[in-house]
Amino acid sequence: MLAAMGEFDLIARYFTRPTARAALGIGDDCALLQPAPGTQLAISSDMLVEGRHFFADVDPFSLGHKALAVNLSDLAACGATPLAFTLALALPQADDAWLAPFSRGLLALADAHGCELVGGDTTRGPLTICITVFGAVPIVDGRSQALLRSGARPGDDVYVSGTLGDARLALDALRGSLDLPAPVLAAARRRLEQPTPRVALGQALRGVASAALDISDGLLGDLQHLLKASGTGATLDTSIAINLIAACADPACVADIISLKKQLECVLAGGDDYELAFTAPVPARSAVQAAARKARTPVTRIGRIDSEPGLRLVDRCGQDVPNRYGAFDHFA
Amino acid sequence: MLAAMGEFDLIARYFTRPTARAALGIGDDCALLQPAPGTQLAISSDMLVEGRHFFADVDPFSLGHKALAVNLSDLAACGATPLAFTLALALPQADDAWLAPFSRGLLALADAHGCELVGGDTTRGPLTICITVFGAVPIVDGRSQALLRSGARPGDDVYVSGTLGDARLALDALRGSLDLPAPVLAAARRRLEQPTPRVALGQALRGVASAALDISDGLLGDLQHLLKASGTGATLDTSIAINLIAACADPACVADIISLKKQLECVLAGGDDYELAFTAPVPARSAVQAAARKARTPVTRIGRIDSEPGLRLVDRCGQDVPNRYGAFDHFA
Repeated sequence: MLAAMGEFDLIARYFTRPTARAALGIGDDCALLQPAPGTQLAISSDMLVEGRHFFADVDPFSLGHKALAVNLSDLAACGATPLAFTLALALPQADDAWLAPFSRGLLALADAHGCELVGGDTTRGPLTICITVFGAVPIVDGRSQALLRSGARPGDDVYVSGTLGDARLALDALRGSLDLPAPVLAAARRRLEQPTPRVALGQALRGVASAALDISDGLLGDLQHLLKASGTGATLDTSIAINLIAACADPACVADIISLKKQLECVLAGGDDYELAFTAPVPARSAVQAAARKARTPVTRIGRIDSEPGLRLVDRCGQDVPNRYGAFDHFA
Repeated sequence: MLAAMGEFDLIARYFTRPTARAALGIGDDCALLQPAPGTQLAISSDMLVEGRHFFADVDPFSLGHKALAVNLSDLAACGATPLAFTLALALPQADDAWLAPFSRGLLALADAHGCELVGGDTTRGPLTICITVFGAVPIVDGRSQALLRSGARPGDDVYVSGTLGDARLALDALRGSLDLPAPVLAAARRRLEQPTPRVALGQALRGVASAALDISDGLLGDLQHLLKASGTGATLDTSIAINLIAACADPACVADIISLKKQLECVLAGGDDYELAFTAPVPARSAVQAAARKARTPVTRIGRIDSEPGLRLVDRCGQDVPNRYGAFDHFA
């Protein structure tokens, strides 16, 4: 802890960068962004609380990464191009050993996405991180290219990006309710602590996907929001979904460590994955694959949108699988 | 406490309004704002923590008001017209008796300024409120009309809006270190708990003021930021400033309850006032008064900008008064 470090020192030391894109960045009452004509500004805000969203002893570099990643994931789900973000931070004390790696993790991810820190607030208090992120979405022929939750239509395919369930495996192992071989835990833990926001995929899916959202609270629970917004239902194939859990494809991870039931639970309702779920019309299948290649992000087709409301799970033979999974809710 | 109320219920119940100005409000991953061509977007973020920024037993209506007011005050200091805001909220539990008045206080002030809640986050945790606010600043003949801290020039007048020091008087009384007559405390407490952001004044000062900032951390401390950004110094007349404390003009407030020393301390370094300090060239004096009348906000000329760095205090005879006041710093 640096007893002599004050609020303004702290901002200057850890968070001030030369302004590149913003018309005005840190140092005035407001930051000013001037989006180009014909552009919408996408905004998202997420708050992370110690003991709730992360362990007290979490690696600060990873925490800095994740705090921005969860917000970038929201931009990705909108198809927005990251522009800038604000950071509000409550800290028990101004501790260099914590702030230095935290700001490195945060700003490394910000730099990787050209997303500029333009302002915020710091205060003393229980460790709490609140980031608000801004991104641009083009308007083409008078129509916003934003990917919304409300655009899914019956017959559309349902896709997810990347892998699902590994973050939950890591969480269970760190809580002691599951034993994982060390290399498997290391890989899964990286997914939990340093998730990859699918920003390039979201942008590549503009004009291709009919609807999208990020599935940070679990696939099935979050997908319900998309179905509700679109006024549709969906049927998902659990035999495809179960292969999305990366850890269980590792030779070090013998099948009987993690039951099929547990694997399915992690994939369908694990949470903390920060992948995208999205829908697209059947004729767009090759365009979806082209977008995935362009974004260097694998995508998997796991089901279809139905006109009948509700979310149905089927096995490889088309037999119903009971859906016992709910989404994470902070106040339920 | 409503045990059955979940996160989405909570948002729908207390914070969802029909969307008016935003292209997309609550309910998707991102909110979308589409500022008019030739407009800059001003953004500010503030976090309030229980025990630090407010007492645990503070009236929730007032807290909702204040949480937005402190952000609107930043927009005001920029000369921005409020557009929208996001709210991130950590709560120990979803408690109707708290949430109902909190949201009423918040949204009443939002409605009064046409500032729309477009998104955010809720989570369980120690009571913490993080608001990020967005406002528009016009661009005229290619020049932004934003009021910055950096525009003050030697010879400019220095002004403050409204009254100063009453919030600090109330805080001292609530902490038990000062006795105030009940009607005086009630008025001062209203200034502490439901400050009035000077939004109309900020807009009226566009094109008139040379520099501005809000003085939430105390007049002298915050004014130093303006002087530093402008590369100037200033001289303030303490005999004018001391009259800015409204409570002490109340006949119920006998002079010997509050010493002149204490009055000056509250005015110069009290904090939590959310007034604007601004500068303007001498030939703009009548334009400043016209802006004040238009905004129905009193302003007082308290000094002048000097080319010599540093902040000097003088009495009515021009004699130096020692400056022993610092700004509030959360980590100092």
